[in-house]
Amino acid sequence: MAENPVRFGIIGCAEIARKVARAIDLAPNSILYAIASRSIEKAKNFAATNGLPENVKIYESYDQLLDDPCVDAVYMPLPTGLHVHWAVLAACKKKHLLLEKPAALDVAELDQILEACESNGVQFMDGSMWLHHPRTAKMKDLLSNYFGQLNFIHSQSTLSATPEFLESNIRVKPDLDALGALGDLAWYCIEAILWAKDYQLPTTVTALPDVTRNSAGVILSCTASLHWDQPDTTVATIHCSFLSHSSMDLAICASKGTLHVKDFIIPYQEHSASFDFTLGSKFVDLHIGWSVKPEEVCVTSQLPQEALMVQELARLVEGIRKSKFRPDSKWPEISRKTQLVMDAVKKSIDLGCKLVNL
Amino acid sequence: MAENPVRFGIIGCAEIARKVARAIDLAPNSILYAIASRSIEKAKNFAATNGLPENVKIYESYDQLLDDPCVDAVYMPLPTGLHVHWAVLAACKKKHLLLEKPAALDVAELDQILEACESNGVQFMDGSMWLHHPRTAKMKDLLSNYFGQLNFIHSQSTLSATPEFLESNIRVKPDLDALGALGDLAWYCIEAILWAKDYQLPTTVTALPDVTRNSAGVILSCTASLHWDQPDTTVATIHCSFLSHSSMDLAICASKGTLHVKDFIIPYQEHSASFDFTLGSKFVDLHIGWSVKPEEVCVTSQLPQEALMVQELARLVEGIRKSKFRPDSKWPEISRKTQLVMDAVKKSIDLGCKLVNL
Repeated sequence: MAENPVRFGIIGCAEIARKVARAIDLAPNSILYAIASRSIEKAKNFAATNGLPENVKIYESYDQLLDDPCVDAVYMPLPTGLHVHWAVLAACKKKHLLLEKPAALDVAELDQILEACESNGVQFMDGSMWLHHPRTAKMKDLLSNYFGQLNFIHSQSTLSATPEFLESNIRVKPDLDALGALGDLAWYCIEAILWAKDYQLPTTVTALPDVTRNSAGVILSCTASLHWDQPDTTVATIHCSFLSHSSMDLAICASKGTLHVKDFIIPYQEHSASFDFTLGSKFVDLHIGWSVKPEEVCVTSQLPQEALMVQELARLVEGIRKSKFRPDSKWPEISRKTQLVMDAVKKSIDLGCKLVNL
Repeated sequence: MAENPVRFGIIGCAEIARKVARAIDLAPNSILYAIASRSIEKAKNFAATNGLPENVKIYESYDQLLDDPCVDAVYMPLPTGLHVHWAVLAACKKKHLLLEKPAALDVAELDQILEACESNGVQFMDGSMWLHHPRTAKMKDLLSNYFGQLNFIHSQSTLSATPEFLESNIRVKPDLDALGALGDLAWYCIEAILWAKDYQLPTTVTALPDVTRNSAGVILSCTASLHWDQPDTTVATIHCSFLSHSSMDLAICASKGTLHVKDFIIPYQEHSASFDFTLGSKFVDLHIGWSVKPEEVCVTSQLPQEALMVQELARLVEGIRKSKFRPDSKWPEISRKTQLVMDAVKKSIDLGCKLVNL
């Protein structure tokens, strides 16, 4: 444990907060200092159910937690519609910010949050855990050094929502998470494709005519394509849905190789994750087989990806606190570009699948 | 070896004919009886290089082979632009027909071929080998019985063409194989998606704005989406390219499971082929892993898929010859539907990616 671990407060006792509370505990440079819910009962229950230490402070309002000068950083798993209010407030109170994805309802809202972080000198990071898994770095290394031109990328994120979820989960409520599956799931697909493209924005985005919405108009399923013009021409397709079995596919087809991963968002198991790739395969004589078969790469990690995410944020906070470093612009930039593309997909859907320029 | 094996003639000594000549030899109910090329030297060289038996007849014109009454069935790996002429002629000469894919340049041409086969009572089958692999039947069994609604399907077929291929291969020549990668590669993707959908035609097809053509206008790379309306709503995307590393992906995402195969057209190795699927997986507590991981299924086969294809055609020919069965309409129907969707993709591309109704 670090000498002065970064003290986290959690605002909102969502299900995902259980995972991040554990991650804060696992990360060697952070501790869970306080939690807040609008209901003291809910917060107490959360603390008890998850075996939080007795000394974790429990607040019955978000404001109280934000007013506690001992809180260094805030993890905020609130419904997306509440992000802009509470994230801006947290930044103004000089709290570093780990904001659950989607970062905001649109880039205008996200810009308010990022400007508040910037002007208050606090670190911003969204809650995309997979970016912190060592498998992700390993894949990037291969892509950058051996794959050549990335020609085609497909990414999908689906989950089979229960009838209860589709009836009452905040992610299908227009006043809470108005982006539905696009915000909850396609966020990852867009981010993964941008990651593969070294965060170069696409030139155009086009939704495909298969949007499924619930009776309140919230997107339950959609598909879109992203296009990059010359010289780094790439086509990418994304698909997200609350109506299919779980899938988290990322498939990259480049001039010199292919890469497949089927659990890029949440690895099948916690301490090791794999992907496979094929480089330089030809067909054998008579085309009755391939000269090179896919190679599976297994990457182990001591800490789960969510703890690595917390550790990275805490490391940046330490740098700002002790060495007066500036906040790292990498993380807000990734979030902003992801949000920009997500906005474009939404715009294309709203325009009846018209092509949208970025 | 069967008592009266079906005697095959091969018209055109293309590279792929080497593989099918071997398949005719491997299949227990067929023999290679004759080959024909427009150049006697090319035909002799083909026979010698591939170690064909001395008694295989060598013809220096396609007409001579078609006029040989001992030829029961013809395998025709000619450039697509020549299919309609020679396939119709073969049918009129009462030859059963194994026609290399794409079956024709468009459905109007294919209908001429199919009508000639129908009126002459000969069996038609296109050269899609993968449909005959036992893995394909195994996958179908799983999809039909356990997967529920097929919501999203992605299929791609790519190969990294050499500079020589891109310069001079018949598949990039507008007067020979005018459909380019769409005909050569997307044929399989469309067919695989139709196969998954029990050959139900999509309602609409939309090309995506990323078509790459060579200087002669032949498609080198393209992407499209297929849509099925209620009640069996499905979205599918296809991608084909001569400009990427080899890939042959089929990924199916259904309400109750997912299936992935990466070598569906040509298995990595000849005598066994695998795919993986996941059924009923949930996230474990805290969402730090999956309750069920993909299960790999390995399917072995004594004969390679191209020999199984030949065997199936020969079996149907035997039935027609000995038992006066009607030709099986299954195979021409698969080809015709594949061609119809391919035509729609081409039309959408030609219309600037407009939605095309089927």
